[in-house]
Amino acid sequence: MHLIQASSRFLKFAIQKPSGTRFQILNRLIRNPISGFERVYSTAAATMGTVETDVELLRKSVIEKQNIVEKQGDEVRALKASKASKEAIENAINQLKELKLELQSVSKELQSRLSEDSGGAMSKEAFRQAVNNTLERRLFYIPSFKIYRGVAGLYDYGPPGCAVKANVIAFWRQHYVLEENMLEVDCPCVTPEVVLKASGHVDKFTDLMVKDEKTGMCYRADHLLKDYCKDKLEKDLLLSPEKVNELKQVLAVLDELSAEALGAKIKEYGITAPDTKNPLSDPYPFNLMFATSIGPSGLSPGYLRPETAQGIFVNFKDLYYYNGNKLPFAAAQIGQAFRNEISPRQGLLRVREFTLAEIEHFVNPDDKSHPKFKNVADLEFFLYSREEQMALKSPIKIRLGEAVAKGTINNETLGYFIGRTYLFLTALGIHKERLRFRQHLQNEMAHYAADCWDAEIECSYGWVECVGLADRSAYDLKAHTEKSAVPLVAHETYPEPREVEKLVITPAKRELGLAFKKNQKMIVEALEAMSEAEAMELKAHLESEGKAPFQVCTLGQTVTLTKDMVSISKEIKKEHQRVFTPSVIEPSFGVGRIIYCLYEHCFYTRPSKAGDEQYNVFSFPPLLAPIKCTVFPLVQNEKYEVTAQLISKSLTGAGISHKIDITGTSIGKRYARTDELGVPFAITVDSETSVTIRERDSKEQIRVSVEEVASVVKEVTEGQSTWGDVLWRYPTHTTNTADD
Amino acid sequence: MHLIQASSRFLKFAIQKPSGTRFQILNRLIRNPISGFERVYSTAAATMGTVETDVELLRKSVIEKQNIVEKQGDEVRALKASKASKEAIENAINQLKELKLELQSVSKELQSRLSEDSGGAMSKEAFRQAVNNTLERRLFYIPSFKIYRGVAGLYDYGPPGCAVKANVIAFWRQHYVLEENMLEVDCPCVTPEVVLKASGHVDKFTDLMVKDEKTGMCYRADHLLKDYCKDKLEKDLLLSPEKVNELKQVLAVLDELSAEALGAKIKEYGITAPDTKNPLSDPYPFNLMFATSIGPSGLSPGYLRPETAQGIFVNFKDLYYYNGNKLPFAAAQIGQAFRNEISPRQGLLRVREFTLAEIEHFVNPDDKSHPKFKNVADLEFFLYSREEQMALKSPIKIRLGEAVAKGTINNETLGYFIGRTYLFLTALGIHKERLRFRQHLQNEMAHYAADCWDAEIECSYGWVECVGLADRSAYDLKAHTEKSAVPLVAHETYPEPREVEKLVITPAKRELGLAFKKNQKMIVEALEAMSEAEAMELKAHLESEGKAPFQVCTLGQTVTLTKDMVSISKEIKKEHQRVFTPSVIEPSFGVGRIIYCLYEHCFYTRPSKAGDEQYNVFSFPPLLAPIKCTVFPLVQNEKYEVTAQLISKSLTGAGISHKIDITGTSIGKRYARTDELGVPFAITVDSETSVTIRERDSKEQIRVSVEEVASVVKEVTEGQSTWGDVLWRYPTHTTNTADD
Repeated sequence: MHLIQASSRFLKFAIQKPSGTRFQILNRLIRNPISGFERVYSTAAATMGTVETDVELLRKSVIEKQNIVEKQGDEVRALKASKASKEAIENAINQLKELKLELQSVSKELQSRLSEDSGGAMSKEAFRQAVNNTLERRLFYIPSFKIYRGVAGLYDYGPPGCAVKANVIAFWRQHYVLEENMLEVDCPCVTPEVVLKASGHVDKFTDLMVKDEKTGMCYRADHLLKDYCKDKLEKDLLLSPEKVNELKQVLAVLDELSAEALGAKIKEYGITAPDTKNPLSDPYPFNLMFATSIGPSGLSPGYLRPETAQGIFVNFKDLYYYNGNKLPFAAAQIGQAFRNEISPRQGLLRVREFTLAEIEHFVNPDDKSHPKFKNVADLEFFLYSREEQMALKSPIKIRLGEAVAKGTINNETLGYFIGRTYLFLTALGIHKERLRFRQHLQNEMAHYAADCWDAEIECSYGWVECVGLADRSAYDLKAHTEKSAVPLVAHETYPEPREVEKLVITPAKRELGLAFKKNQKMIVEALEAMSEAEAMELKAHLESEGKAPFQVCTLGQTVTLTKDMVSISKEIKKEHQRVFTPSVIEPSFGVGRIIYCLYEHCFYTRPSKAGDEQYNVFSFPPLLAPIKCTVFPLVQNEKYEVTAQLISKSLTGAGISHKIDITGTSIGKRYARTDELGVPFAITVDSETSVTIRERDSKEQIRVSVEEVASVVKEVTEGQSTWGDVLWRYPTHTTNTADD
Repeated sequence: MHLIQASSRFLKFAIQKPSGTRFQILNRLIRNPISGFERVYSTAAATMGTVETDVELLRKSVIEKQNIVEKQGDEVRALKASKASKEAIENAINQLKELKLELQSVSKELQSRLSEDSGGAMSKEAFRQAVNNTLERRLFYIPSFKIYRGVAGLYDYGPPGCAVKANVIAFWRQHYVLEENMLEVDCPCVTPEVVLKASGHVDKFTDLMVKDEKTGMCYRADHLLKDYCKDKLEKDLLLSPEKVNELKQVLAVLDELSAEALGAKIKEYGITAPDTKNPLSDPYPFNLMFATSIGPSGLSPGYLRPETAQGIFVNFKDLYYYNGNKLPFAAAQIGQAFRNEISPRQGLLRVREFTLAEIEHFVNPDDKSHPKFKNVADLEFFLYSREEQMALKSPIKIRLGEAVAKGTINNETLGYFIGRTYLFLTALGIHKERLRFRQHLQNEMAHYAADCWDAEIECSYGWVECVGLADRSAYDLKAHTEKSAVPLVAHETYPEPREVEKLVITPAKRELGLAFKKNQKMIVEALEAMSEAEAMELKAHLESEGKAPFQVCTLGQTVTLTKDMVSISKEIKKEHQRVFTPSVIEPSFGVGRIIYCLYEHCFYTRPSKAGDEQYNVFSFPPLLAPIKCTVFPLVQNEKYEVTAQLISKSLTGAGISHKIDITGTSIGKRYARTDELGVPFAITVDSETSVTIRERDSKEQIRVSVEEVASVVKEVTEGQSTWGDVLWRYPTHTTNTADD
């Protein structure tokens, strides 16, 4: 039980989930950042065995024709051996040639269909490449420690990336902490072992790994098996339908395989180390936390936190007090978390150090209503409920209020956070049609969890989990209460005392002592520890028989009790308050993943005026844009530069981040350069009294006086007005000097 | 040479300096967060030996009187032994009694003077206790993992502390990154060994440690010696003047002692483990970085970064390119840094994990002027130059422009950052009179450093280094260039090619080969590596004598060269560009230390109206305040609550962090509660149309309409108006319901 609880803890790691634990049965579908649905679907298709796609038919046809070709070859050889007539042999050869041509043609078709199937993937990869090239060239990110050949899974944010991240975090703080009056905390990354022992991370936060037996190089066991299966399916044209089904089945259950099963498959398929072809060790678990030692003695093991949530849980008591001993309240934390991945893949999506923004909303388990739910109830967006997933249907667009009313979403508070998260992500620039909230399937959820939803964003890697929203019941606070012996509980004082029926068990210590001597204490404890059902059963037994057998686990034996040894009754008592462990609803945001998806959603290309070049554009909303505005003197000229400096000063005063570009480059080139950074507005100085403001995506321009320009830019970047609004207010400007 | 450079690297750690390295001679005075000056002063006083304070005179007197008492005791015993007359004996005894009384009285005075001397410290400690009690009770900070009995040197920021920290960081970003157009980066905490090997941290970032030989408990060697000396000086009344001098001398040179010298002193004084009295090991260096392992192989050692600066240096090439290959430019980083202290002391000042905000301003070493220096030149504040320190004078208030013009501050860029730092700290609420910029003494600075200044803030711990501002020349970029083999250099293209006189050394390889056979190559290399001066000296020697001795280090011998073996000349060459390693000027901010000093500077108490209680107040400026404003319905009443909610909504809309308190507590108590959190403004709702705004420190109130109140609060919190301004505009309000 405890083991399952501990491992289930990791079900909440929407952001970067561990994989390959011994508890994959719970973990199914969620190991990968990529949505579980694809795997549900492929499992279903593979196991149902009824779906025969064109590819499967082609595969069959290739195999059939291959067999026929072989037979015909045998035939030719037989004719030759039997010294048949020249004509008969020639006929047979001609037939063989024709059959070979047919085989070639079907093989070609299969090949082209296979590469077409992964062709979608290819064009996605090309798109991803284009985005990533731009991101890296413009220093949105930089592989860390590049001059020392880098470290896999570690990335720096360069200047524009850093600004984007700061904007996302500032908006998160505004949208959640400030607007919801949350209690923000900031805890260290270095965490002593005892805390992560209580949370279950020390024992269960693992991936399965294999080692190259000669070089010691490490690989994730499931990665190797996955690569093998995919490669076979894509490149081996002669796979039998049974083999195809088998490989697909393996891919579908990959996350559920035990260390033993994974090891057996690796052996069966003869998979070796990819770099050296050396044999591999059996798979074994590797803990994904970075270990360290606190202080100089070597006696205080510690880890870099794998999530920020634990820092909140251990502070519950103080935070509850700070909130006037009242529920509900939410605490929040933004900070670094660490995961020592075995072999990081998927670029910026799976990294070894990342920023999390986590909320723990503590609530009375008996009342999960939310006073502000009505503010989000009318939002309509894609929900992908358990039912739709199991029925292999698509996500449906539904009113949030309806989803909660129908019970699809467990409660108002969870629903409220889903709604607020929808608003948060779309305000930043996530496309509404490429965002869905997917409910965890029953077997994905911890047994104690009431309900879990992931905000999934579609990008070139598929549907990526970027926010996890889970109602985790009282699990975490209870785990720390148990380990620390500090009760992390809440009190509810009743307006009037309540009458409660209470079980009263009174062992007769004297009689027990006489009968059982030194075992008396153990028996007394066992009696007092009985559940209500056990006690009532014992009472009935004693009353009917006068005596009853009673099992004492701590003694490892069953004793016989008589009626006089214990009194069991139910009494009405007055209670003034209730002490309980609060439930926690936990929205957890992977800041880096959200940012990466934003990059993909905002990226597009457009041809230069001459049509000979493709320009990259990031259509960041002003809220997100790393720089809000650029200032360009149209030509190199002292007067314009002075005006530009003047404007720069007023922009700084207004708190608008901006950049001056006084290079003599053509204005079109300068626009293109900043479009690529996602700068929404460009001020071009072409006189000393008035200037133009150009909007990035429409390329429209308006003419505004030098005095007004900073306040107009402030208005449109801070959201008081839209570009549409100011377009009405100011004269538009057209000139052949604009975008080349 | 390289060793000194590496160790000198640590001279820049103004924020948390390592101590006890083997290079203390360079490190003198700066190991402790407390300013070096006190130690300069006490060293001087101790060694000059001319200052005889009252305490010293009293000590002498105690010893003299003790001697006299002993003599008189001998006298009495002698009289008794010689069977002297009863009268003579009684006289002697009476005299002895009188002498003892005298001794008692002088001892008492010394005792009281000693505790008075530390009495200043005591009252400082009482003040610190009061501040810290308030901070901890109101959750500005919380010892981390408290329910598990905590970890020394790790602290959480609770809700108000977290808000204060976010405000400091946001202002830093505005004041430096935005206003100065800096390139912000964000690099991981986990750092591979090679980077910190290049920077010198792996080899030199150590403190000296001793171990309890039985329990293995660790202590900082210098701490134990320091405690011993201080304790002796405070409590041992019979210390001889020589011993007093010796102990003071030890305290003064504590930071300069080698492991051997420290060990010898510990042995000499018989110092044992404080907790067990067990014997101690010899002191040995302990590296202060948290070590970990990257990836699963165990073959990639890594550390948690001890500073953020290295992440900037390794990215120099990309950042220079991003800046259009132009100097100067500055890069900045805000992030966590880690230091595995042996035994953290001094509460929030010396912690194991902390936030740094660092700037690396890269500049052409030949031109350190700054175009905006004129904007800060007229600032006047306390500078504590090397000269004043050496002359045992006090810091002087001086115009920044004058200090740079006189050469006290090495250059305009360094001066500019000092000025901007003064503005930054005072805007946050640091008292001008308790802030000074102290120049490093020559022996504190690395040999390559051009100039270093620390912003020191006075608090209950003394003068604390909170910002280090160093002109580090080209050291860091050169170290990484050497280790990574990636040239981290800048290019300066001359507008027109320049004629440069160049030294040309042409070894005659044939002649050298004939003469020196296999040593020829080494000699050629040594010739080519000569400095200009060496070459010109050799040339002169060869020309006058026809031959010359030449030392070849790599061969370990001196050979004799003849005139035909090398030609040395100076030639005029045309150069189109210059390639050079930029200098770096580095302002480095210890965010946690600044925040702690702000707490102390802003804290005061005032009596309640009844005079029976002391209320705590944090006089945070609005910029810094964790919550800008509270909203209090005067009495519990639905109408007022609705109005309060309405105001809350408009405050949220205006982006003003605030809190509603609808408890029925007296308004005075509610004011007191929020004064203690440093909330600058309180809105009290006593009607549905207009409300009052109270200013925290003056307790003055104005009456404002409900519609206007949010915008008025926004004005005064964002600094468009002062409280004084709005006090004129709106009617003041007096009522007996205000502060009790």
